Amino acid sequence: MTQKAQIGVTGLAVMGRNLARNFARHGHTVALHNRSYHRTKELVENFGDEGTFLPAETAEDFVASLEKPRRVIIMVKAGKPTDDVIDEFAPLLEEGDMLIDAGNAHFADTRRREAALKAKGLHFVGTGVSGGEEGALHGPSIMPGGSKESYKALGPLLEDISAKVDGEPCCVHVGPDGAGHFVKMVHNGIEYADMQLIAEAYDLLRQAGGHSPADIAEIFTGWNEGRLGSYLIEITAEVLKQVDPDSGKPFVDIVVDQAEQKGTGRWTVQSALDLGVPVSGIAEAVFARALSGGADVRSAAAKAGLPGPTASPVGGDLQADVEQALFASKIVAYAQGFQQIQAASAEYDWEIDPGAMAKIWRAGCIIRAKFLDFIKQAYDKDQNLATLLVDDYFLDAVAGAQDAWRRVVVTAAEQGIPAPGFASALAYYDGLRAKRLPAALIQGQRDFFGAHTYHRTDKEGAFHTLWAADGRKEISA
Amino acid sequence: MTQKAQIGVTGLAVMGRNLARNFARHGHTVALHNRSYHRTKELVENFGDEGTFLPAETAEDFVASLEKPRRVIIMVKAGKPTDDVIDEFAPLLEEGDMLIDAGNAHFADTRRREAALKAKGLHFVGTGVSGGEEGALHGPSIMPGGSKESYKALGPLLEDISAKVDGEPCCVHVGPDGAGHFVKMVHNGIEYADMQLIAEAYDLLRQAGGHSPADIAEIFTGWNEGRLGSYLIEITAEVLKQVDPDSGKPFVDIVVDQAEQKGTGRWTVQSALDLGVPVSGIAEAVFARALSGGADVRSAAAKAGLPGPTASPVGGDLQADVEQALFASKIVAYAQGFQQIQAASAEYDWEIDPGAMAKIWRAGCIIRAKFLDFIKQAYDKDQNLATLLVDDYFLDAVAGAQDAWRRVVVTAAEQGIPAPGFASALAYYDGLRAKRLPAALIQGQRDFFGAHTYHRTDKEGAFHTLWAADGRKEISA
Repeated sequence: MTQKAQIGVTGLAVMGRNLARNFARHGHTVALHNRSYHRTKELVENFGDEGTFLPAETAEDFVASLEKPRRVIIMVKAGKPTDDVIDEFAPLLEEGDMLIDAGNAHFADTRRREAALKAKGLHFVGTGVSGGEEGALHGPSIMPGGSKESYKALGPLLEDISAKVDGEPCCVHVGPDGAGHFVKMVHNGIEYADMQLIAEAYDLLRQAGGHSPADIAEIFTGWNEGRLGSYLIEITAEVLKQVDPDSGKPFVDIVVDQAEQKGTGRWTVQSALDLGVPVSGIAEAVFARALSGGADVRSAAAKAGLPGPTASPVGGDLQADVEQALFASKIVAYAQGFQQIQAASAEYDWEIDPGAMAKIWRAGCIIRAKFLDFIKQAYDKDQNLATLLVDDYFLDAVAGAQDAWRRVVVTAAEQGIPAPGFASALAYYDGLRAKRLPAALIQGQRDFFGAHTYHRTDKEGAFHTLWAADGRKEISA
Repeated sequence: MTQKAQIGVTGLAVMGRNLARNFARHGHTVALHNRSYHRTKELVENFGDEGTFLPAETAEDFVASLEKPRRVIIMVKAGKPTDDVIDEFAPLLEEGDMLIDAGNAHFADTRRREAALKAKGLHFVGTGVSGGEEGALHGPSIMPGGSKESYKALGPLLEDISAKVDGEPCCVHVGPDGAGHFVKMVHNGIEYADMQLIAEAYDLLRQAGGHSPADIAEIFTGWNEGRLGSYLIEITAEVLKQVDPDSGKPFVDIVVDQAEQKGTGRWTVQSALDLGVPVSGIAEAVFARALSGGADVRSAAAKAGLPGPTASPVGGDLQADVEQALFASKIVAYAQGFQQIQAASAEYDWEIDPGAMAKIWRAGCIIRAKFLDFIKQAYDKDQNLATLLVDDYFLDAVAGAQDAWRRVVVTAAEQGIPAPGFASALAYYDGLRAKRLPAALIQGQRDFFGAHTYHRTDKEGAFHTLWAADGRKEISA
């Protein structure tokens, strides 16, 4: 009897190759396929001794080499290439087989594809994979969506290759349908916010603290030992420590200050707008990157010489204050992102356990952090928590941080240092805290110019006020 | 010879009815059609003496009553109802006839429809109409897209019924394709930002100024005489002046403080994200409404008792400071919105004249204001202005405002009064002003964890740094 593979990977660029190697290293026989065969051969030539690979030149041979139900991981570019691969493989598969899209698809595409393939009796499993090339090889955080049934056959393999925390896999069935890709998208959105807040902390320490990048690297190294401890804080210290060998200048000073982006941050905000969830932290991060990249507008501004204060070192314990502001703002960003996951789960009936998401993000992915343990615990206590900000741990943290947080926002405004993430997070917190919001005035304006009606605090119903002498009466609409 | 109509309106709910009456009052013969005939009859019975109406019971009779090329205004709900009406009328029309969608369609739908109808030789003219019911009757601001050719036959009629400023119509051919609906969408997005900033100004005057709604109404009435003079400031004073007859309380205090929204603000932000234009002012406004409407989260927060300062009246000339902060933040919001229009114009080859948009918004629409004259003048001087903030008038205004603006943001942060619009606008301004942004650090992080490469300030090319001991070298990719 010919040997069969437990899993197959089609699309063998670096991410697909590393996933395939990861499966093989864990003792699974891996079928390999790529549009051009030379990549397949290369993989076997270079890494064939890591495990058992079954290279196939054609899609037919690849499918024939898989045990049933077949598990086919697609790792190609999102968009049309993914549809093309699905169109190629679906006719070759049988009822109960699984097509697993491990790329960065938009969850709406995943939902469309899953519905189409379900009609053919196939399982389509949109799966978020975080951790980049290194994660794919050594243990990523894995977020599979799709049917519960598919997870029974697929989950053990994915759990095998995922990152582990105290032996527990960073992989769980997120929910049916596009839930996996949705959650991966929000993960990336949170990552944008986290990076922006770190960048603001650095900028404040440099401009209002008078610290050098090397000093700030040490400050971040210190923070990494505390409650901010995380991969992103750790690598920030590494980046700030780096000296450019050519110029002898700090690395961060020779890099063009225009941040690029690939789209998942933007998608997160667009989805949050559809769901009606305020994710101002992620939005400000996406916009800060867009502003930085707007070379024309920035050079026009530089030429015009927009006036403002020149930042200079301030007194007080800025370093401790910034740590507090960063932690509090980070809590807000995560609270917003998790609220978005809960809203989508309700909207699409995905029944996502938010605590399980925090759990599988504790290793393997970019936002891995000690912090996520507390998020997990908060949702373990109450899966329907309205916002992380009301959980004891986070409430205490923000209560303790807020005086410092306010001082940092004040310093940024006074010194002319842009801190949209810190300022927006504080405004969000104060909005949530407010007993009365001026939204009541907005409802009044809307009723005035558009007869949109309003609700009253003391009576049921929708009301419209006679604003002008046009014969309209106060009505209950 | 039977009398023919110059224009027809199908869809005779209040907006369509008022547009039809407006045409008739201007001496045009107006063909009328509605899905159920009783509305058509009602219009003629109630308003028949205002001009010449040709009511038609069927689509065929309606089309037959129009002179050629036929001009058919569709005023039905956006979405499927619009497609249904198009499907009903398109087969009845001839080459060169015009279907004018005057509803609030998403510009992407308008682009799709225009392309489909162009293939049949018909002109589809997506047209923004602002000013609500009263505007439709007495003179709206009108933003037609579609072909230049269609504007030749249609423009004079639309200009006739539009609002006027010094005899000049608030109607111009915005650009081809979906340009009209796009610009209307951004108009609404700017409106969201403007309303949010006004709401924050009110909240600050009340909480940190200790003023009553009636006092604040007077302050707004005063502001309305100055550079802030605008419809929104005027009606804000009216709303704040209002006393609830039932309770004797200020009206604004009996309204539930949950702001509603219909979608164009959200669309504006989603489109800006696609275009890569930072519209933080509009986004914060949309999110502030979402936050206010999030009853579950707010009540959980209230129950948990999120700690923070209690606002109390502050010293200094808060009233003058808030006026400055409001004006400066408003400039930022408009600068962002106009940049979005310019970006879309470039993206879709629409050749929109931004100054002409400012011109036609000076009357008839919700954001009408003296202010728009200065925007018009700025773009008259330089149609390719990178941002309004570098135009002399606005630069001077912001330079004069900024000390006060910073004081207001500081007061909000210290007093715990949510002012996301003011804070975000200031952070945007400081971002634009910055010689170096911490985006350089973000590029370093991205290169570290994802090998995304970065650019250098001193050399051409894309570079990647060896961050870990994994054998990679600094490369020019």
